[in-house]
Amino acid sequence: MSRQSNRTTDNKKMNSELFTLTYGALVTQLCKDYENDEEVNKQLDKMGYNIGVRLIEDFLARSSVGRCQDFRETADVIAKVAFKMYLGVTPSVTNWSPAGDEFSLVLESNPLVDFVELPDNHNVLIYSNLLCGVLRGALEMVQMAVDVRFAQDTLRGDNVTEIRMKFIKRIEENLPAGDE
Amino acid sequence: MSRQSNRTTDNKKMNSELFTLTYGALVTQLCKDYENDEEVNKQLDKMGYNIGVRLIEDFLARSSVGRCQDFRETADVIAKVAFKMYLGVTPSVTNWSPAGDEFSLVLESNPLVDFVELPDNHNVLIYSNLLCGVLRGALEMVQMAVDVRFAQDTLRGDNVTEIRMKFIKRIEENLPAGDE
Repeated sequence: MSRQSNRTTDNKKMNSELFTLTYGALVTQLCKDYENDEEVNKQLDKMGYNIGVRLIEDFLARSSVGRCQDFRETADVIAKVAFKMYLGVTPSVTNWSPAGDEFSLVLESNPLVDFVELPDNHNVLIYSNLLCGVLRGALEMVQMAVDVRFAQDTLRGDNVTEIRMKFIKRIEENLPAGDE
Repeated sequence: MSRQSNRTTDNKKMNSELFTLTYGALVTQLCKDYENDEEVNKQLDKMGYNIGVRLIEDFLARSSVGRCQDFRETADVIAKVAFKMYLGVTPSVTNWSPAGDEFSLVLESNPLVDFVELPDNHNVLIYSNLLCGVLRGALEMVQMAVDVRFAQDTLRGDNVTEIRMKFIKRIEENLPAGDE
């Protein structure tokens, strides 16, 4: 489905439950479609990526956030602005690596799993993996290559949800000669 | 995925864009999975139904709405409370049938289609058909059998989105003897 040109950035605030249940329907469908959880995880990440590369434009328009000075500022914007905006929750930014190239987003509560319990036969499923793809796709559009993965997941019995983000490199903007 | 027992009804307000794009990913996946649009429409309705029968509990807890006196009150609650709560928009209630058993929900703007254009080869697709299923499923849980379908759709060139709802019957509560 292609993007409509005349979309607006008006503020339609909604509760998360319909989204949560619709996301559940998507994961359930993928579990039917693919043979194993690893493949479902991969598809969720891919779908998320495609969403992220489109969502970033809406995010920049809506948030008026400018270019981040460093990865620490990026982390804060993701946690305090982006998560709040699109999921209604604010994760804490913790567990910085000494080099400052890795951090964790820790969510006390993950809205995507509000109604969910994983069946026993899906213990490799990374249920919320779409979020990793969204973050990866969105950041790629602002010239940051990052690795994103779940380090902890309440669905697998952890106390919190922890998304680990690792900065890989700044992507060079390859503009055609004479452009910009 | 089964329901978690300890879910809360705290208010996580979010913008609709991530939901809109995730819904798009779901529809795209179904278009890959099924041979024709009619089958996709059917699946969306079925998924929506399953969502509706679960969402109603959250709705009743969150809205404190009691039993509706008649279909007119039901229409108002759906438009002004439920749509506002879960989609962030308030459709108008119009086009009542003389018998009072049919009305339309008219949306100036449908958040589900914010980023969407239908490709030419999907002209039978009822893109937002999940919503019909959600309404049908939720109302069934409060003992109302209704027929729900799209009468107009901006994705097909109509000026507005119109969901037509027809009351079929009140469903008897078959409680075990001695219960209640």
